Amino acid sequence: MKPRELSEEECGRLLSSARVGHLGLSLGDSPYVIPISYVFDSGKILLHSRGDGRKLEIAHANPRVCFQVDSMDGGCWRSVVVQGRVSLSDDIDAKRRMFDAFTSSGMAGHAGKAFRREDLDRMEMTVWEIEILEVSGREGVW
Amino acid sequence: MKPRELSEEECGRLLSSARVGHLGLSLGDSPYVIPISYVFDSGKILLHSRGDGRKLEIAHANPRVCFQVDSMDGGCWRSVVVQGRVSLSDDIDAKRRMFDAFTSSGMAGHAGKAFRREDLDRMEMTVWEIEILEVSGREGVW
Repeated sequence: MKPRELSEEECGRLLSSARVGHLGLSLGDSPYVIPISYVFDSGKILLHSRGDGRKLEIAHANPRVCFQVDSMDGGCWRSVVVQGRVSLSDDIDAKRRMFDAFTSSGMAGHAGKAFRREDLDRMEMTVWEIEILEVSGREGVW
Repeated sequence: MKPRELSEEECGRLLSSARVGHLGLSLGDSPYVIPISYVFDSGKILLHSRGDGRKLEIAHANPRVCFQVDSMDGGCWRSVVVQGRVSLSDDIDAKRRMFDAFTSSGMAGHAGKAFRREDLDRMEMTVWEIEILEVSGREGVW
């Protein structure tokens, strides 16, 4: 059976319901993929990372990203692929927007411990806001 | 708690036990990510796709790929990232190698139906063999 294309609304529903996606970055001819928790908020994909590391180096050099989310329901799979552009920020307003979006989704924790809004100022953290340039999705039978 | 680096042996165990990974490709400055079933066989990652489509166009233009596999066990996550180079083939020997590796792993099906070794010749299919250039892995607490 051939996969079916998802509508934009169906893509939005999957982006809203999942909690972990796969972030694709690239530098030169080398792609790089990592799993990461996120929130879909006001049409953007929000995530956060520590203030250093390979993914951040790559994203500073090339802000074009891919964000992919999938689900499995019995034998049926769905996958949404977002082509986007990321803005990186470590200012306190961006951290608060991110924190509030994660908290609204019941996800105000990280690495085994919860963190609090008043701790954000001293936390070394980069906020990633991914603007969606293109979205597509498919579903099919495994 | 900071993530721990996995040894090469631990990376190999995760690659051997999982059935679905995330394939990262890139063209120009645009990364592209898709979930896909695979087999880890004789130190290579084997997968297959139909004879057309976006991922194949990209891989023909740029054979550098990333293949990422993760697992979740209670609150503990593991992730392995492979940097590799893909060879694409639609000849019958490559199809048979791929079929035998998938069958040995109990995965001789596709899109809801099983297929048979004697059907391979007339099936429009591209075999992807990913040579591993670099592998790393981490584990941490969610």
